[in-house]
Amino acid sequence: MDSPQGAFRRATAAHRVAGSGEAATYRAEVAPGWDILGNANGGYLLALAARILSEHLDRPDPVSLTGHYLSPGRPGEVSAEVGTIRSGRRLGTASTTLRDPDGTAVLAALGSFSDLSHPSATDSPSRVDATPPDLPPPERCIGNDPGVAADLAGFMDRVDLRIHPDDAGFREGMPSGEPRVRGWFRFPDDEPIDTIGLLCVLDAFPPTVFNAALPVAWVPTLEFTAHIRRRPASGWLACEFTTRIVSDGFLEEDGLVWDCEGHPVAQSRQLALTPRA
Amino acid sequence: MDSPQGAFRRATAAHRVAGSGEAATYRAEVAPGWDILGNANGGYLLALAARILSEHLDRPDPVSLTGHYLSPGRPGEVSAEVGTIRSGRRLGTASTTLRDPDGTAVLAALGSFSDLSHPSATDSPSRVDATPPDLPPPERCIGNDPGVAADLAGFMDRVDLRIHPDDAGFREGMPSGEPRVRGWFRFPDDEPIDTIGLLCVLDAFPPTVFNAALPVAWVPTLEFTAHIRRRPASGWLACEFTTRIVSDGFLEEDGLVWDCEGHPVAQSRQLALTPRA
Repeated sequence: MDSPQGAFRRATAAHRVAGSGEAATYRAEVAPGWDILGNANGGYLLALAARILSEHLDRPDPVSLTGHYLSPGRPGEVSAEVGTIRSGRRLGTASTTLRDPDGTAVLAALGSFSDLSHPSATDSPSRVDATPPDLPPPERCIGNDPGVAADLAGFMDRVDLRIHPDDAGFREGMPSGEPRVRGWFRFPDDEPIDTIGLLCVLDAFPPTVFNAALPVAWVPTLEFTAHIRRRPASGWLACEFTTRIVSDGFLEEDGLVWDCEGHPVAQSRQLALTPRA
Repeated sequence: MDSPQGAFRRATAAHRVAGSGEAATYRAEVAPGWDILGNANGGYLLALAARILSEHLDRPDPVSLTGHYLSPGRPGEVSAEVGTIRSGRRLGTASTTLRDPDGTAVLAALGSFSDLSHPSATDSPSRVDATPPDLPPPERCIGNDPGVAADLAGFMDRVDLRIHPDDAGFREGMPSGEPRVRGWFRFPDDEPIDTIGLLCVLDAFPPTVFNAALPVAWVPTLEFTAHIRRRPASGWLACEFTTRIVSDGFLEEDGLVWDCEGHPVAQSRQLALTPRA
């Protein structure tokens, strides 16, 4: 049984089993308890791929990382061959595919990694035409309630989400009408959130479309891209997810995460399918 | 010398030189004349990779495609090893890296392709919280003017851009103050724009940040992701590019393209570096 402390970090552990340098094979485990209805959460899976790529490139921080979701991630062992595509001064780029023991591709990932601990651009131009979402304090937002969402018990026990009350009505059949979800995120027991943890944050909230009053039952993610701008300060993260265009069987969902010092730390966009309910 | 008819199509031609099925090697040419200051346009390069992936997967339409830009694309031959990661009923997923003759990686790409000619989702739920940009007719927008932008002559001779007059002042040192660029796009001589052509559209306009009055001289793209929603109707495409967050040495630029029938056909987001001027 996991101790909660460091649970995310341990659930994304990976080790090299063969190779080195340009190409290597890694093994990791899709940990039990990070699933929703038996399928591992997409952000968690992307974080697992990120941990492998980060170790392979020996660079701690994903700057831009894309994953294509190919089949459900079931708890158990996965293997991943990693190839370095380029290793430059500031950035390293590599790709990998997480595979089940039977060779089925679960997630294909391509990313560029760096070390964001020493920003090379502290004097870089800045302009932010956005503000953190206007959220009530966490204790007045809607937390995970196993009574309401027993189906989600696995993953939802691993994260501490607090959804804006105005955006949580869909759980009782009262969607807000706006395809938007805002809320706070932290790991339980104040486990620190590194830049790989941000990948989990970016895909932890309920789909925006649940608030749109559309006949959409589920929204399987086809592709997810995350941009990490900086390491977050420790503390609650303020998150906002929005969707503008549901059309032709697809929707995009954009995420933006702010740390408690008011810095934008991560952006995401995913493309999901919208099968009719 | 190219005849203008079909110039884009020919400039993105690729042929298989070895292998088949799961893994193969392709050869293509970074065509002269698609560059800005000697470096091939990023959207054009991504389209070249898309053509290779599309041929390999035998699926015509990129649904989601990501490229990481690793070194400048110079005119001349490139080779690309392609590996199929998954081939499903609706989607096929593959990755490739375009390499110079000396093996230098130019562009790494990962994408999922489909056939959008028969939308499987004609009755899918729809909600569009966006409208096409409010553009004057093309003849009252600002076209490519070699006298103003002689440096850009290569690529800018290959596309017919018409920038909204309110967004074109940066060319005379009068940025609008808003990091936004709106305009029309078509290929010269009415060359049809397929879904791979849309990749070129999504990266053809001047950077939004040129209108932001920030001390940024150039914005090298690190990563670019395009989502294609549907095949565009023939005619002018209405395009809008915006940036919300310039911070910590990076910016994102979001693109949205509408066809002349008012359908959103493509979305993009890129992450670029913002070195101080």
